[in-house]
Amino acid sequence: MKRLFLFPLMLAAAPVAPAVPSPGEIVAAAPAGDWVAIAPSDLLVMDMAPDAKGRPRRVVIQLMPPLFSQGWVGNIRKLAAAHWYDGTSINRVQDNYVVQWGDATERKALPGGLVTVGESDYELLASEGGNRHVYFPEHSPHLPLTVPMLVSIDGYGLSEFHGGWQLGERREGKGRSQKRWISPVHCYGMVGVGRNFSPDTGSGAELYAVIGHAPRHLDRNIALVGRVIEGIEHLSSLPRGTEALGFYKTAEERVPILSVRMGNEVKGLPAYQYLSTESESFARFADARANRRDPFFIRPAGGADICNIPVPVRRAPV
Amino acid sequence: MKRLFLFPLMLAAAPVAPAVPSPGEIVAAAPAGDWVAIAPSDLLVMDMAPDAKGRPRRVVIQLMPPLFSQGWVGNIRKLAAAHWYDGTSINRVQDNYVVQWGDATERKALPGGLVTVGESDYELLASEGGNRHVYFPEHSPHLPLTVPMLVSIDGYGLSEFHGGWQLGERREGKGRSQKRWISPVHCYGMVGVGRNFSPDTGSGAELYAVIGHAPRHLDRNIALVGRVIEGIEHLSSLPRGTEALGFYKTAEERVPILSVRMGNEVKGLPAYQYLSTESESFARFADARANRRDPFFIRPAGGADICNIPVPVRRAPV
Repeated sequence: MKRLFLFPLMLAAAPVAPAVPSPGEIVAAAPAGDWVAIAPSDLLVMDMAPDAKGRPRRVVIQLMPPLFSQGWVGNIRKLAAAHWYDGTSINRVQDNYVVQWGDATERKALPGGLVTVGESDYELLASEGGNRHVYFPEHSPHLPLTVPMLVSIDGYGLSEFHGGWQLGERREGKGRSQKRWISPVHCYGMVGVGRNFSPDTGSGAELYAVIGHAPRHLDRNIALVGRVIEGIEHLSSLPRGTEALGFYKTAEERVPILSVRMGNEVKGLPAYQYLSTESESFARFADARANRRDPFFIRPAGGADICNIPVPVRRAPV
Repeated sequence: MKRLFLFPLMLAAAPVAPAVPSPGEIVAAAPAGDWVAIAPSDLLVMDMAPDAKGRPRRVVIQLMPPLFSQGWVGNIRKLAAAHWYDGTSINRVQDNYVVQWGDATERKALPGGLVTVGESDYELLASEGGNRHVYFPEHSPHLPLTVPMLVSIDGYGLSEFHGGWQLGERREGKGRSQKRWISPVHCYGMVGVGRNFSPDTGSGAELYAVIGHAPRHLDRNIALVGRVIEGIEHLSSLPRGTEALGFYKTAEERVPILSVRMGNEVKGLPAYQYLSTESESFARFADARANRRDPFFIRPAGGADICNIPVPVRRAPV
């Protein structure tokens, strides 16, 4: 079992804890160069109907970068460009699981040009080269510390960070012929594509966001296309549906979606950044999440699961 | 790495999936003898003020059994008997973390007779005998299958089920002198005791429930005293607080707690049962959670983390 031990592990805290930075303090102190801009054209901005007190509810979703899930991501771009999501609704809120939205009537015609993606695209074959597969070095060439990218092995396999995302890894075979399969991970806030029974893989018209403990059993079974980077509370605090799977019973319970646009089409949208997962700041942050030494804690865990190390995202300082 | 492989693992689903029972179907088919009654005297019944539409909001909490956290559990019994919680409120809702309740004024006098519990009681020393420690056999003598109790090793250590609860285990030393420390686990829905900085351990007057991805870094750092077995949606769907740590900014945002009573004092309370974690039904359920083969799934995960195998609880059939 490999764990992330970047710094000496404090096995016991002193009675009066020293001033050791918390994960949040490490992020706040990260130099500007450790932050990576998120292109507005990679953001999906969903405006829900205002809440009962008239307050706006906006959810900002960062779409997954190449090479992950790009068939579905392309469909979502087309659906947003066609304003297809406008007038759809949030139809399902299942506690400790997902919020799901789309066309409750199931009759709204889809725009042309959507592709059907195969199940094989739920994961990527990583290799040390080749023209069809992504290059995933075992150790990041950018990481300024001599540490493995791996965080831990758990019941779901290996976990690691790459390019700003939490990823799972599955290995087949040994030695030089070993194959490594990489897939996104169903952590809190991740956005996926609803589908029917296999071989259906969904189009992207029906989406869901994780609002509970990471349902990792969905990994490699369904497409993940992004993550909520702002406004998750507008989804996670919705009333739970009372029908099977948390679907709302009545049309009145559904929350209207006013519009969904790509970020580059939204006036006044803040600029967003994520903390480079190849930066020293991120390595220190991940270490601190796995080994809490800030004053509240008396016993560092000595490890963490991948979903307990969320990649920090912020509005860019003005 | 040990995993729960109770039955042959299906590595790939057939194109047309066979009718393999889902975890829920396994639970529904469990014989009556696999269910264990929860004593009403071990339940804490919290009635919140009705919601905006006048609907009642009741949260039912099962307290942890001996020998876990009994100092705090005893305090909670005294606080409930004194009706101390009545008129307190929910003061903090932090997204993907916790809902916390107690006396927002911090001036309400505590009843007499509460004990101060030491940090050593955050975990238990397990042994094969002795009079101070709980007997925790490596393999349950009750389990009718020749399987280890262990579910997995992950970044947090070992995980296992015992007596109807999810537990973490930490080992020190080797061979016959090895010590095994057992502690409850911060899974979704678990209830814990708010505290100040160490060496404070909290009294039980301030409580929280987990409403997000399992914050396992809190294990062994704070007392866990029970789990929500009904009504978690009344906590998890509350508006998130906008102050630091998710505290509500104004008194108006706080949700009043009308009363907290032990279950044996509540008229008309349903009878509750949990699925014995030592039963064959539970073993099959846990295996199905770790290896989903019901028709929706195409690739069983081959493992699960302890918090993705929640112990089934139901209202007893009438």
